[in-house]
Formats: sequence, structure tokens, C-alpha cells
Amino acid sequence: VAQSTVLIVYAHESPASFNAAAKDAAVASLTAQGCTVEVSDLYAMKFKAAATTEDITGGVKDAENFCYAKEIKLASEEGRLADDIKKEQEKLKEADLVIFQFPMYWSSVPAIMKGWMDRVLGFAYAPEKRYSEGIFKDKKAMLSFTTDCPESVCSDTGINGDINVTLWPLQNGILNYCGFQVFAPQIFWDPATGSPESRSSMLEGWRTRLQNLCGEATVYFAPLDYFDKEKGFLLKPEVKEKYASKECGLTVGIHMGKPLPANSQTKAGV
Amino acid sequence: VAQSTVLIVYAHESPASFNAAAKDAAVASLTAQGCTVEVSDLYAMKFKAAATTEDITGGVKDAENFCYAKEIKLASEEGRLADDIKKEQEKLKEADLVIFQFPMYWSSVPAIMKGWMDRVLGFAYAPEKRYSEGIFKDKKAMLSFTTDCPESVCSDTGINGDINVTLWPLQNGILNYCGFQVFAPQIFWDPATGSPESRSSMLEGWRTRLQNLCGEATVYFAPLDYFDKEKGFLLKPEVKEKYASKECGLTVGIHMGKPLPANSQTKAGV
Repeated sequence: VAQSTVLIVYAHESPASFNAAAKDAAVASLTAQGCTVEVSDLYAMKFKAAATTEDITGGVKDAENFCYAKEIKLASEEGRLADDIKKEQEKLKEADLVIFQFPMYWSSVPAIMKGWMDRVLGFAYAPEKRYSEGIFKDKKAMLSFTTDCPESVCSDTGINGDINVTLWPLQNGILNYCGFQVFAPQIFWDPATGSPESRSSMLEGWRTRLQNLCGEATVYFAPLDYFDKEKGFLLKPEVKEKYASKECGLTVGIHMGKPLPANSQTKAGV
Repeated sequence: VAQSTVLIVYAHESPASFNAAAKDAAVASLTAQGCTVEVSDLYAMKFKAAATTEDITGGVKDAENFCYAKEIKLASEEGRLADDIKKEQEKLKEADLVIFQFPMYWSSVPAIMKGWMDRVLGFAYAPEKRYSEGIFKDKKAMLSFTTDCPESVCSDTGINGDINVTLWPLQNGILNYCGFQVFAPQIFWDPATGSPESRSSMLEGWRTRLQNLCGEATVYFAPLDYFDKEKGFLLKPEVKEKYASKECGLTVGIHMGKPLPANSQTKAGV
């Protein structure tokens, strides 16, 4: 990771929170390794969450059939984006790694962070340049979050259901879609309930992991060329055949009617 | 549905959009059936998306370890919520059915709608009263959305992956968690690419469905008493045994290491 540039997109209001501590630990650890670290503190910035026509300067092209995805892409090409989006995109451009640090709200990111994704990443939503050919294919990304659940309830027999399923729309639908190589998520299970010692030990584990992050493999996703562009982007027959005898599906979402590969969104290279 | 009260939470900026047409069709159809229909037009309301300390009047209880979920619940019990949240909660209280009408952004709801969920539903996040015992167990809810994908790419061999997986965090993690009985989603596949006739016919299908909505079964989720409260809310041994010989898992998230039940988030009673 040395000499890399890291952007931490951070969403917690309280500087005394565990999320703040996790963010501070990352800043300290990565800086000590020689990285340049930039933090987008979304609440402190009062980051605008709603994706609106105001995000496009100089007027929208098709007000009648306004489509945010199309307009933001066009405006991006023409340099007509709102200043706050431009600033975030500049940071993103410089970054080799983007870490999203947040408390999980309702099985996803808090609205203010979803707003960052909707608005800043909007231009990267491009069916012709997605997944392994996505715009950010030379960058890495990672979710680092707290949840108030213990790990057991987020298993495939637990009441909240398999965390690998919960993470799929975020890690595949957003990060992998944009091309990011995705490090396994850093999940802080229920830090609030534990003792101060258990919180310290969680942070220590995080610091240790950050020391060796550059050597980590990333989460497995199906490459773009597995899909037939001419036939509705379905798996090519030869790929289906190759995996026909395997016990599990390819990934969580591209499961081919088979059991999901275990831990494939929470562990690298599974 | 006659004499029911319906709340439509609506997130599109343009009155000429397909989402607006879908919302208008629902208002007209449900009103004609004798329902009372209320619309929360989030962009028009400039609905605040970010969940912040400002949502709580009279000061937060624990600024040092600020936890939005805990604070919003307490403030709700004590009547100390911001006015805009209170207003939405009043509408929600009256509603027998809540329809969320939105364009899918990044495999989820737009940030402004996630903000409505984070802020208005926040108090319903209650581990002791969740799922089939959830706060809104006498209400129904439904996602109605557009996506720019054709259906094939969102299959279990399609490049974006099974839509049933994508919907799980929204339908189970939010709606079912709160107790809502969830109608199968109304998915408008890629309306922008089709002809005006195909759009009309999509809307006609929606109107027809709304005529008979009250007779529809809801999506299947595992009941709360399937899980052992004393043992980390894992499936009870007798439930595991009961389903041991079945080919598929219980639901998308509680899949027990087996293939997912097909279409279980997109069709009722599967």
C-alpha cells in the first residue's frame, strides 16, 4: 500500500463513535505506511444526498423524460457537474483504494452515503463498461462497517439471513459494477454491546489487517467475458458447461440455481 | 382494498417520467376503488435524507456514544422527533398499505428514499419486535420500481445476478423486518427502451393488478418462532429437521446452504 492514495468515505456524526475510531485507526495506520489519505466526512461536509437536477449545471438535456443516470453521465463528459460532485470525483480519481466506513442502517449504507454513491459514482453506471471492464478497474474498494447484530444472526440459518446475500447488492451491484476490485469487508460485529477491551481488540485487528492489506486477494466476481453480449448478457454455454459439475454457483447472485458458494462476499478468492 | 388507506412514497423529480405515470395510475386506480390515497412526493417535499442529531428535538441522550437507532427510538417514545418525521409517521400510522414507487439506483432505492426509511422507519428497528412480530405486522407494503435492465440480465445466470437476491435486503431487511406483509414487487423492466405502446401496456398491467391487489397472497418469509431466541436466533433444530429433506432453502437469505427457492422474492407464496 506504500505510496498509495486512499480515500475514506466516512459516515458517522459523532467523533466519539466506534466508526470514528475505526476511521482514525485507518488514517493513522495508512499514513504511517506512507500512504496519502483523504477523508470525505459526509456529515461534517453536510453532503447533499438527493440526486437532483441541481447536480447538473447549465440545464438538463431532456427535462421531459429526465433520467438521472443519463444526465449525470452526459454532464460529466461535458464538465457540467455541481461543484461538490466534481470535488469528490477529483479525490476518487487520485485514489488507489476507497474505504467506505459506516454503521449499517437497514441492511445497507446510511442514506447520506447512498447519496454519495448515487451522485459521485453515477457517471460510472455504464452497461458497456461494467464489471471487469468497469471505469475503476485499476482501483480497489472496501466496505468497513459496524452492525448491532452478532455474527450468528447473519448466517444462512440466522434470523437476519446470510450476510453474503445482504452484501451482494453493495459489493457486486455498486463496487464491482464500477470495476473496483473489492477487498473482503471489515465487519465489526456489535461493538456497542461488548466491553471496552473487546472494542480495543477489534480496532487492533483492524490495524493489523491494514498493515498487510496490499498483499490481500480480492473477492471473486465473474469476469465480463463469461457473459454473452449478443444474448442478453447471460452466461455463455461453455461457461455453464464448465461449472455444471460444480457443487456451488459462481457467485451469490449468479448462482445458477445451485447452493451459494460459502462466504464468497466476506472472504477473498472464494 | 376498498376503504383502505394507502400511502405512496414516491421518488422521482420529473412529473413526465414513467415513475410519475405509475404513481398517477396507482392514485387513480386506488381512489376509484374507494381507497384514501396519500402521496409523499419526496423530491417535491425536499425531504431531508440524512439521519442526523437534528432529527431529535430537545437534545440527544448520549452524545458521546451517539447511536441513531437508539436515539430515534427513545425520541419517538418521548414525542421528541423532528416535525417532518412526525408527519410521515402520522401518514404511516393511517396506512393499511404502503407502496414505494422509485427508479432503482445502484441495486437499491435512491438515497432520498433510503433517507425516508432511515428516518421514518428508524423507530421500528427493534430486535425484540421484528419480522412476524414487527411493529407494522397489520400493514402491507410493496416495492414498485423501474430499472433500465431487461429481465434476463437479472436472472441467476445473468450478468447483474438474480433479482431475488438484490431485493432481499430491501424486502426482508427493511419491510419484513418492520413486520409488513410484502406484496410481490411490481417491476417495470426497462420502460425507457421500449415503444410508447409497450409503456402503455406496462401501465395497463399495473392498473389491472391494482384492481385485484387485495386478493393477492404475500411473499413468503420465515416466521419469528422458527428461530431460537435463547440460541442466537438460529433456526430451531426441529425446523431444520423439517426442511432437511427439501431441495431448497427456506428463503433467499435463510438458505441453509441449499439452492435458493426460485422467484421467492418476486412471486407471492413461493
